[in-house]
Amino acid sequence: MTAARILKAQPLTRDAFRPFGDVIQEEGTENYTINDGNTLRIHDLCVVDPGEGGRVLVNFFHALDAITLPYRPLLLECHPLGSQAFIPKESAQFLIVVAPQGRKPNLDRILAFVTDGLQGVNYAPGVWHLPLCSFTKASFVVVDRGGPGKNLREHKLSSEEIVIE
Amino acid sequence: MTAARILKAQPLTRDAFRPFGDVIQEEGTENYTINDGNTLRIHDLCVVDPGEGGRVLVNFFHALDAITLPYRPLLLECHPLGSQAFIPKESAQFLIVVAPQGRKPNLDRILAFVTDGLQGVNYAPGVWHLPLCSFTKASFVVVDRGGPGKNLREHKLSSEEIVIE
Repeated sequence: MTAARILKAQPLTRDAFRPFGDVIQEEGTENYTINDGNTLRIHDLCVVDPGEGGRVLVNFFHALDAITLPYRPLLLECHPLGSQAFIPKESAQFLIVVAPQGRKPNLDRILAFVTDGLQGVNYAPGVWHLPLCSFTKASFVVVDRGGPGKNLREHKLSSEEIVIE
Repeated sequence: MTAARILKAQPLTRDAFRPFGDVIQEEGTENYTINDGNTLRIHDLCVVDPGEGGRVLVNFFHALDAITLPYRPLLLECHPLGSQAFIPKESAQFLIVVAPQGRKPNLDRILAFVTDGLQGVNYAPGVWHLPLCSFTKASFVVVDRGGPGKNLREHKLSSEEIVIE
């Protein structure tokens, strides 16, 4: 038996996350006032991709449990047919674990991030990622894909494989 | 000169809003747990329609001013090419004024609503509506449409035409 892979969760940044999709944050996003100056529009925060024949769904996800570090992930999943965005409704930090698109997650290229509480993320189609793991029992707006086809693949992990610190 | 049309803002309900799009609320929406029971998914809250050749945008709108009643709207707008959804990030009540699709808003069929603070709305393409008018300086997730074509039409009102109470 080999030792568990130990990953340090890094602060989430656009540069580090670029291969996996979008960081949803105000800083560095185009913004301008509309409605005679009454409203500030923070414009076009992520690339929503419902794929061929899909449609965009808007949902709420409520985290019913809160996690703590160190955390041992037991599952990675991916949605091959469409993107999936998570936007905290209130301020809420959550854990992100990602691996590049592929038939299975390449655990040599896995990365872990922690959001700053205001940030959201948008996973590009096919990116392997941890299901929602929030540090508080928070609510999220989730923008993803509905339609025909199998849009969920799962990869189970043993509790001895990866530890996120 | 005729007297101003006086409209009473009603509590927002799905039944009353049906001709104009969707009320985004948990009550009455399909929901189920995912992620081994760790997450509650409130599924498919509105019909996102980017139209032919459009793509779905995710944005934040910050209301920089707060309104109060009575309120005299000076502008109605519509987006003929795509839907537009407003979801409060924190609890925030906002004012809705709508009129059916058409070349111009038919002021004989105008209606006014107030959200309960948690509700959002999704305007169907072409529905005439008030720009964002929030009772607090709140932030909203807005899901709308980007792409080629003119997706904004405006109809100005004089301050003597409509009063919302």
